[in-house]
Amino acid sequence: MRSSQFFMPTLRENPAEAQIVSHRLMLRAGMIRQASAGIYSWLPLGFKVLKNIEQIVREEQDAAGCQELLMPTIQSADLWRESGRYDDYGKEMLRITDRHEREMLFGPTNEELITDIFRNSAKSYRDLPKLLYHIQWKFRDEVRPRFGVMRGREFLMKDAYSFDLDYAGAKRAYNKMFVSYLRTYARMGLKAIPMAADTGPIGGDLSHEFIILADTGESQVFCHKNFVERDVLSMDIDFDGDLEPIVQAWTSDYAATEEKHDKAAFDAIASDRRLEARGIEVGHIFYFGTKYSDPLKAQVQDKDGKPVTLHMGSYGIGVSRLVGAIIEASHDENGIIWPESVAPFKVGLINLKVTDDVTTKAAEDIYGKLKAAGVEVLYDDRDERAGAKFAEMDLIGLPWQLTVGPRGAAKGEVELKNRASGEKQELTIEAALNRIGHK
Amino acid sequence: MRSSQFFMPTLRENPAEAQIVSHRLMLRAGMIRQASAGIYSWLPLGFKVLKNIEQIVREEQDAAGCQELLMPTIQSADLWRESGRYDDYGKEMLRITDRHEREMLFGPTNEELITDIFRNSAKSYRDLPKLLYHIQWKFRDEVRPRFGVMRGREFLMKDAYSFDLDYAGAKRAYNKMFVSYLRTYARMGLKAIPMAADTGPIGGDLSHEFIILADTGESQVFCHKNFVERDVLSMDIDFDGDLEPIVQAWTSDYAATEEKHDKAAFDAIASDRRLEARGIEVGHIFYFGTKYSDPLKAQVQDKDGKPVTLHMGSYGIGVSRLVGAIIEASHDENGIIWPESVAPFKVGLINLKVTDDVTTKAAEDIYGKLKAAGVEVLYDDRDERAGAKFAEMDLIGLPWQLTVGPRGAAKGEVELKNRASGEKQELTIEAALNRIGHK
Repeated sequence: MRSSQFFMPTLRENPAEAQIVSHRLMLRAGMIRQASAGIYSWLPLGFKVLKNIEQIVREEQDAAGCQELLMPTIQSADLWRESGRYDDYGKEMLRITDRHEREMLFGPTNEELITDIFRNSAKSYRDLPKLLYHIQWKFRDEVRPRFGVMRGREFLMKDAYSFDLDYAGAKRAYNKMFVSYLRTYARMGLKAIPMAADTGPIGGDLSHEFIILADTGESQVFCHKNFVERDVLSMDIDFDGDLEPIVQAWTSDYAATEEKHDKAAFDAIASDRRLEARGIEVGHIFYFGTKYSDPLKAQVQDKDGKPVTLHMGSYGIGVSRLVGAIIEASHDENGIIWPESVAPFKVGLINLKVTDDVTTKAAEDIYGKLKAAGVEVLYDDRDERAGAKFAEMDLIGLPWQLTVGPRGAAKGEVELKNRASGEKQELTIEAALNRIGHK
Repeated sequence: MRSSQFFMPTLRENPAEAQIVSHRLMLRAGMIRQASAGIYSWLPLGFKVLKNIEQIVREEQDAAGCQELLMPTIQSADLWRESGRYDDYGKEMLRITDRHEREMLFGPTNEELITDIFRNSAKSYRDLPKLLYHIQWKFRDEVRPRFGVMRGREFLMKDAYSFDLDYAGAKRAYNKMFVSYLRTYARMGLKAIPMAADTGPIGGDLSHEFIILADTGESQVFCHKNFVERDVLSMDIDFDGDLEPIVQAWTSDYAATEEKHDKAAFDAIASDRRLEARGIEVGHIFYFGTKYSDPLKAQVQDKDGKPVTLHMGSYGIGVSRLVGAIIEASHDENGIIWPESVAPFKVGLINLKVTDDVTTKAAEDIYGKLKAAGVEVLYDDRDERAGAKFAEMDLIGLPWQLTVGPRGAAKGEVELKNRASGEKQELTIEAALNRIGHK
């Protein structure tokens, strides 16, 4: 993509309304624009990151045996009356009346609707177990929306639901999602720590939050250093096998947010193994048994033909929230530092002097080669000052910056900079392309 | 995917509420379930088709130089007051009041919001031309929603918007979308015919509808046979070049729906070159000049520093509607016949006798090989009657059926059936795999 054509309206000034760094950087980099309070449009640069994150979430859900479907945003109030949550949910639920005066709502979550679909479809124990998920926009009418996409009103969420005959089956589903979540966050370059959690309005008996570490995170966390040293991506995981040992390993060490902090338990850890840090919640999983299947009468027949009420769980990841959370975890004073797996482009190619034929020929040639190799590249081909181009590339945080100037171009050389480390190298064009291609 | 695990709740009976064939077949095949009147959940089989269609639309928008972003579903009423459409739109607009008593709405279209984004971002003629699109769920509160996803209330739409300095620029954008639409529908196996159209509530001076031919279509169409004989996919199209000759070729022959039919003009065509058929509208493009940029004051500075009001167009494709439209265009008495480009799986693999070791070993082996080759396959590994398995495969309409039975398995042979032609062949396993792989 050429910068001269790309719709990326960056801002020079820090927007006054942004209180946290991810909100500020997303506005400045032209990733989002506010449409109404807590409601954002995702401009092309932000949209690319959102899609990359969504795709990692999808791949890891699929790998865990979860099947994708899509429920609508607008739901009937009647279903929520069946579960008893229509009155309980309060003002965060966006209530709507249609032209025929029917009460509807913009779904804040989907336990009722998925249970309705499942009770009308599954008849027998042979239809179990099932893990179903969707990735859909949701709405929660926050009284004071703030912090950009970290606490918006309209937000993109992945929510999965499990259906099983009994607790043992439901725990297997819970374990699949638990391990899948560890992999999902690790692939985004995040250190995620599962913590035993309260169940809140979803309800249930067993629940974990996944908190990622970020210096500018919203809450204080206390945990064992084991968490940050474990690498789930190097493990060979069989989602059809017994995942209990992995879940045990990730739940046996101390980890808690401030609200649940037990100082005595934390102090019992050897002092050089204690970690105090800031964190951001990016996922939450629940086992809630028959909390919804009971009132909604979601049953199947077991092997003896007897009706059994389904055991369920639900499993959420804040997809749009993760865009902000990753920035909170990965930025410096100059801007965003995207992990390569979610970066909107892998390479930023800077033409330092578009009026110089040799420079422009070299830059166009590199641009063509990168595109032909399937490398996502943003090519700054505009007639602007070098300083402005460098500052913008640092701001938008692409993993690699490749700079072509008149002096280097004459020698067939370019400068390659790694955004994360800041390391710069003068290389031949060939060597630079190889370096990027192999990374 | 194994049928024993796949969530595909088919129906044996024809659902009484379905008046048209696509609605009936989508319900029976377990592609969708109604959540409320005119609002559907997309179950895994339907979701896969929806995603395939969305991806073709996306690729063709990108190829035409259109950039993807994403606007929210919930919009502020204030913007619609600026354009004057808030009061005009009537009861089809779903109006919402949030917890702070602010008037909001679920977007039925996005001219106002994209114009707002653009006027706050673009300052100069150098920011033009721009073509921006998104693929988002929209809501129109139809008084009598019916025909399944063909006229639902919540529906998925691709809408693109163009921004130019003058009519000449806007016409170039219009031509890009015109040609891109021809390619989009052709890739889905559809015969699309552009017809001069009224502009309706979007407004404007220049507009075409794209109607696809389907025997069970909603409206009568009259056109020259040239349309169905032209092949846009074999053309080498340069979207940066002059597309006017292509647009001329596709607009110079007679084509009209019943409402605009001119019998004298139609009768002037040689009788063996006249085509009377049924059709379905699947896209609509508009040039509307400054209809929105005037009231919203969307301007940029031209080369002389003078303010110029932007010339705009909008370009819609009904993505979820296309799922139904393709079925209307491609089915028989046994079920759906998916064009390969949008099929949820390429191959349906039928194990005729799961209790027979030789048969099951052969079927499992084929399943493994197809998956390893990256071929999407639905493997019916359930212990069910052969007749039920065949009927279900015909119903869901996968392009290829590969049947493994005890007699064939003993000889290393399988039966390969082409769903569209009905042609069946006994082949060695190797030959069958090659046949599918090469198609």
